[in-house]
Amino acid sequence: MYQLYEMADSGNCYKVRLLLHQLDIPYQRKPTDILQGASRTEDFLALNPNGKVPLLILPDGRPLAESNAILCYLAEGSPLMPEDPYECALALQWLFFEQYSHEPFIATNRFWIHLEKAQQAHAEQIAANHPRGIAALNVMENHLRGQIFFVADRYSIADIALYAYTHVAHEGGYDLEPFPAVSAWLTRVAAQTAHITIDA
Amino acid sequence: MYQLYEMADSGNCYKVRLLLHQLDIPYQRKPTDILQGASRTEDFLALNPNGKVPLLILPDGRPLAESNAILCYLAEGSPLMPEDPYECALALQWLFFEQYSHEPFIATNRFWIHLEKAQQAHAEQIAANHPRGIAALNVMENHLRGQIFFVADRYSIADIALYAYTHVAHEGGYDLEPFPAVSAWLTRVAAQTAHITIDA
Repeated sequence: MYQLYEMADSGNCYKVRLLLHQLDIPYQRKPTDILQGASRTEDFLALNPNGKVPLLILPDGRPLAESNAILCYLAEGSPLMPEDPYECALALQWLFFEQYSHEPFIATNRFWIHLEKAQQAHAEQIAANHPRGIAALNVMENHLRGQIFFVADRYSIADIALYAYTHVAHEGGYDLEPFPAVSAWLTRVAAQTAHITIDA
Repeated sequence: MYQLYEMADSGNCYKVRLLLHQLDIPYQRKPTDILQGASRTEDFLALNPNGKVPLLILPDGRPLAESNAILCYLAEGSPLMPEDPYECALALQWLFFEQYSHEPFIATNRFWIHLEKAQQAHAEQIAANHPRGIAALNVMENHLRGQIFFVADRYSIADIALYAYTHVAHEGGYDLEPFPAVSAWLTRVAAQTAHITIDA
């Protein structure tokens, strides 16, 4: 059986749990409290030298890190990974957008404000990140004005990856009111078959 | 023919040019000086709303952004993309590592120091990034102590992606002397058939 080292509140971990649930793949949760240093122990670093969750352990014991690489691995051959080579590349394009242009600003501010409760200590970084998070939301809003999902008008891992931190962006100080296309897309994603919430 | 919007000094653009050359795929270079705002014009934003290079235009006119998504698209079916599903996922793992844990610290410091010549103006951010770049180099060093390339002991797009900014890390203030396994791997990558340099 798959084992997933993960932290309940993490959007990156939620992505993987949501996909596993929608693909009906059984797995065992291995709660890993990164706030208490559980991803920095010798045992954990032996599995993932980069010291991050989520970390997926395959049934044969081999480890795989990086949330979006895990999504690609699990979704391969399923309807949640586009089959056409260009559409598959577009899904990857949005996964890299998520990790480079979205997560570092939206998830990081949520981490400081909502999880660490350390808004004051990180006030300057939060303020510097905010416009970059808004820029990412603007890119999403423009794209979703003409599309119901991110790639080929079908729900895919690109939607799962971007949903994870966008739907809790308010916990990082982002108001989604000025982003109606993003808000409507969030509703569509949450209405998909076998959807689970981040606290499930 | 493929068209590549790119800037000569950018490691993200170099990745794509190196792969195109090694796959012997003809393409046309479209020089795009991001320092002069060329990736923020209306025409460019119509092709890539995220306003970044590299941007690949397929022979049929469809655009593809994000350097590592472009690598995956072009390498698919070639010896530079692992065929085995787990090894392919490991290549993606390293591509996401590169964009999340490596590029924002190593490439960004190089951008400020080497390209913008704005070391003083960004002194605080450069200093904050430095230990995070060192952490990424340590992850690479530990991995390369037991491997000749990043995935399955064969040269792949994972090596191309990580080579791009690692081999010019000194231009961002990173000394590679303490990383002998990384340094030896850089030499192996540069010795591959049809290698080109970043200024080629």
